[in-house]
Formats: sequence, structure tokens, C-alpha cells
Amino acid sequence: MLSDIRENAIIDQLTSALPRSPLQLNKVHESDSEIVRIPGSDGRILAATIDTISEEILAGLYSDPWLIGWMAVMVNMSDLAAVGAAPLGILISETLQPDIPKDNMMRMQQGIRDACGACGTFVLGGDTNFGPSITVSGCALGILEEGNLLSRTGCKTGDALYTSGYLGGGNAFAAQRLIAGISAQGSYRPIARLREGQMLVHYASCCMDTSDGALATLDELMRLNGCGFSLGKRWGKALSEFSIKTAGTMHIPEWLFLAGEHGEFELIFTVPRENEPEFLLRAQSMGWYPIELGEVIAVQQVRLVLNQKEIPLDTGEIRNLGASGSRNIEQYLKSLLAIDTRLGEERTTV
Amino acid sequence: MLSDIRENAIIDQLTSALPRSPLQLNKVHESDSEIVRIPGSDGRILAATIDTISEEILAGLYSDPWLIGWMAVMVNMSDLAAVGAAPLGILISETLQPDIPKDNMMRMQQGIRDACGACGTFVLGGDTNFGPSITVSGCALGILEEGNLLSRTGCKTGDALYTSGYLGGGNAFAAQRLIAGISAQGSYRPIARLREGQMLVHYASCCMDTSDGALATLDELMRLNGCGFSLGKRWGKALSEFSIKTAGTMHIPEWLFLAGEHGEFELIFTVPRENEPEFLLRAQSMGWYPIELGEVIAVQQVRLVLNQKEIPLDTGEIRNLGASGSRNIEQYLKSLLAIDTRLGEERTTV
Repeated sequence: MLSDIRENAIIDQLTSALPRSPLQLNKVHESDSEIVRIPGSDGRILAATIDTISEEILAGLYSDPWLIGWMAVMVNMSDLAAVGAAPLGILISETLQPDIPKDNMMRMQQGIRDACGACGTFVLGGDTNFGPSITVSGCALGILEEGNLLSRTGCKTGDALYTSGYLGGGNAFAAQRLIAGISAQGSYRPIARLREGQMLVHYASCCMDTSDGALATLDELMRLNGCGFSLGKRWGKALSEFSIKTAGTMHIPEWLFLAGEHGEFELIFTVPRENEPEFLLRAQSMGWYPIELGEVIAVQQVRLVLNQKEIPLDTGEIRNLGASGSRNIEQYLKSLLAIDTRLGEERTTV
Repeated sequence: MLSDIRENAIIDQLTSALPRSPLQLNKVHESDSEIVRIPGSDGRILAATIDTISEEILAGLYSDPWLIGWMAVMVNMSDLAAVGAAPLGILISETLQPDIPKDNMMRMQQGIRDACGACGTFVLGGDTNFGPSITVSGCALGILEEGNLLSRTGCKTGDALYTSGYLGGGNAFAAQRLIAGISAQGSYRPIARLREGQMLVHYASCCMDTSDGALATLDELMRLNGCGFSLGKRWGKALSEFSIKTAGTMHIPEWLFLAGEHGEFELIFTVPRENEPEFLLRAQSMGWYPIELGEVIAVQQVRLVLNQKEIPLDTGEIRNLGASGSRNIEQYLKSLLAIDTRLGEERTTV
């Protein structure tokens, strides 16, 4: 069930008392962006999403002001990408320390500007506050056309499962910075898959971004669609070089780079088999090479091959480790490694 | 000049490196909400605004979770009201303490729900984070029709100056709570003037909400329009009963309740004399009684009568007291009282 995930349970609690707009087309959990009919606009639909960068700063994961600005834009643009919207712009609310050096402030604005440039979009407005630590909230707006809606729901058994690009980079960056203590500056610079998302509205049956890591995305899609995913050995092919190298140096099992909760902002989506040939042609003509990750299966499990054996993962347990609120990174890694050890033992005894 | 105000100078710095969207109709500073053409929508225009409640919480001004929720909605709806937009909804990003009592969390949601109900609007979506103190960002969206735009600019000498309702309540509440140490719970509950704003698009020449207090609004309108305002004795008639009583009990000069930076979220607007009769009729037919505050004058000053004498106020100096970052409320009041004393001496010696 959706509410077995602690984050979903909190969202349910927070939204339970709130009536929904009759103009809103998506339900809670169903979409990376909110989808709202624009009254009197001849079928134009607004996509809107809000997301705050604060925990990553408090944890020491983002310290470069440029990256903070870049991410404040990208996390929101990625939510627009996952519904196939064309961006209209972003509003940004910044909380700054009263004594923030002007250079840092301007570097953060550069990050915001560069990210908007990379997305072909604009800052529409904002708000400035002062407080004990930097927090940046972005609210991105985009436009969709009636009849071209892409959401987290809609996949069917047999659909092909894809990722828009290599996975694991967000967690490799986090492992380097927070565990190995390496600055890793410049190694993490996600770009929202806006062009790809706008093309996917014509071919995909469901889509969600990997903002909380790849396994969290698969787990959420599984719960929402009442289906599962078989990844076989393909997941290994989808891991980024940076993740594989980091896994090697740090002696962390590779699959844990899919499990960690710091995402890479790719899109994970499903394509009905009959759409697949045209989808791949269109992708190639855009210079885009999506990576096949596996297939939608009837049983509600995320299955993959570890050490030559296909096993189901308890993705709910893995997601709830991150949401446990402990925010102690060593403890978090230890818990993930314990799951890997347990899976190894299960594979030996079965 | 606009940039003589520290807050404006920071906004100019933050936005200087950011290109503007060709679809955006307002310039920086010119409007309480961002005004953006919706492509392919047959003349529909989007109004959007973002605002964060955090400093008021850190200062101890808002401690009731219900009020925090209420204000997170109202400050944003008030910005929509000031441009005459019909609200489409709001997105809300909440940062909560990991150990926040569930009751407090639910009371905040009630405040959000009640405020949306009072505005006839809806929460469209949101985001939840955990951090050391409560912060709530809202991004409100509304719709306008082409040709019906209301902004901070456009008034002319001789236009009548109005407020949508009584002034000073925000500062009276702040004085009671932060200086007198009275809880004052329930005495502050602004309601965004949405209906009034939608009517004003047909009659007003400029409009701005009093989110930072009445004098800050007049000062900003003065700088933007290159004109001034003569309030004569009328400002006394526009003070709320609660402000007058608080001034009496706390021995604070009444006019300082216009000067403080905690606003009451009324609209201050100007009406060309030829529109005035019909405007007043329409207002009365809605059961709304706007209060005449004064008149637009050619000289760039905010003038009012204190102790039988009309004098110009240095509203720039007053605004910059609040933005000085000291955030020490006793010091802030002392500085305001010093200005009052100085004005008294000037009146005697002139």
C-alpha cells in the first residue's frame, strides 16, 4: 500500500483535511506536478510544482552556492519534465543568512540563472527572507495541452521499462561527500529532462522522476499501478561510470547506488510494446538514447539479479530507512549494507 | 529612488543577472504578483506570487500553528488581490521540526484550510521537509483577463487615495505580543481583499497591499510613480480601534502604527476623480466601505498632519529601520520613537 511508506503517510495526513479544486485533474501522489485546468483558456492546462532545498544544505551535501541555486531550479523543472510540460518559468523564495557574503549570494544567483538557461526558462519572481541557514524554495509553472497528459499511473504488464539516462550519480556524489569526505565539486549537475518529457507524452504509459533515487521511484510506481518491475541484470548497464567507480573505491555494493535517496533526476517511464519502435526512432532523432531497464510484471515486486540470482527487493523497507528522520549518514549506509548482507545470506540458503 | 530602500537594493542585486521572460508583462518592483501571458490561451493571463513565513515565527510573532497556516495562505492571496486576480489555488512547501507534535501539525493544516475556504480557493499541492524551525512557503496562482491589469504604477496628481479597510492592526498585534508580552491570540486574522481587488481593476489607477505596513506601501508607490501623497488628518480616521486602544495603553504615538513593518494586508489604491462616483456606488453595493486616505500630489513626499501641523515624513528612513537586520524589537521601537520625538521638535522650532 502507498501509506506503508512513511513519506506517503505524512502527505496523506497533511492533505486529508484539504478539499480538492474541481479544476485539478490529478489526485494526491499521482503526478510529479499538479495538473490544473485553466478556466476559459480553450483547453490549456497548467502544471505547477513546489520544492524546497534545505535538508541537503543542512546535511552538508550541498555547500557550493552555485549548486544550491542550480538544484533549486532543476528539482522543480524535473517535476515539470515528468508530466511532459513546457516550462513557463519559476518563482523562487530565498532565505539567506543576514551575514551571507555577497559573493556567495551572487554565486547562488548564477546557479539559478545557469539552470534556467539550460532549461530555456526564466525566473518570474521571488521573495527574500533572512534566517539562520540557507533555504531555497522554487515553484515551477508549465503548460500542457488537453489530451496530452503523462502521470505516474497507467502502465500495464508487459510494457517496457526505461530510464532517460544513467542512474546512481546522485548517490555516488553523496557517498563521496558525506562518507569519504571528498568535495566532489562539479561531479553532480543534473539537467531536467524537459525535452524528453515533452516527447514522452506521446509514447509513455507512466512516468516519474528519480528525485529520491531509482528504487524509490520504482517502489512508488509499483504501489500506484498495482504492478511490479523485473529488472534482471539490466540495472547494471544503467549505472553511471561515476557510480561504478565510486562503488569500487568505497567498497559499496553497486546496487546500493539505486537504493540511496539522493536522486539523479532522470525519468523512469514505461512504454507499451506497440509504441516502442516509433518511440526509439523519435528518441534517436533527438540524439537521445534512453536505457531499457526491464519490464512491467503482474506481481507487485521490484525484482533484480544480484550474484546471478533474481530476487525481489523490499523497496518499502529501503525507502523507510531514509525517511526515518535519523539523518545520520553512517547509520543510513550501515542499514543499507545490512540489507545487502541479508540478501546475500538469503541467496546462499535458498 | 527605489534603490534607496535597502530591501529594493537587495532585490535589484538578486535580479540583476536574471533575464526576463518575453511573456512577462510586469517589471521588477512594479506589481504585487508576477503577470505572465499564457501562450496559446486566448488572452488569459497568469498571476503568480511566492512568499515565505519564517521571520515572523523566529521572532515569536506567530506561535499559534493555526495562525502560521492562515498567514501562509493570506500573504500570498493578498498579492493576488492587489493585481485583481481570481485565485486558482496555492502550492505550499512546509519545513517542520522532526519532533513537531501531531496536534500542532494538524492545527497548521486547519489554518491553511480555513484561509483557503475564506478565499474560495484550494491547496493544489505541496512539499514537506524537516528542519530546525517551522518555515512555510506559499506560491499562489490566479487568473486575469487581458486588458484588465492593475499594478503599483499609474496614478496621477489629483487622484483620490484610499485604503480598503482599517490600518494599524498588524503593528498593534506585534506591539502587544513582542513588547507588552500579551498573547493577543485571535486579534490578528487578515483576510485578503480578493473580491475588492477584482472590482478595482475597473476603477483604480494603482494598487498595492500593505504587507509591510501602510507607510511602506505609500513610500513604494511614491518612488514607483514619481508622485507623493497628502494624507492630512484623514490617517487618524483610518486607524483601527484595536490600534488606537493599543496606542493608548502602551503610550505609543498613534501614527507609528502606520510606520511599523508588520502589515494588515489591506489594499492601498488610487482612484481617478472621474471614476470615484461609480467606484463608490459599486463598493457600497458589495457591502464594502473603503476609507479615503488623502490625495496624490505632485511633490514626492508622504505628508500628514501631526499635532495640527502638516509635515513630510522621511518614509525611506522609517522603512530602512526595519530592514536593518538587527531584528531587535525594543531597538526598533526606540528608533521609531526617536523619529517621533525629532518630528515634535521640528514642529516646535519651525
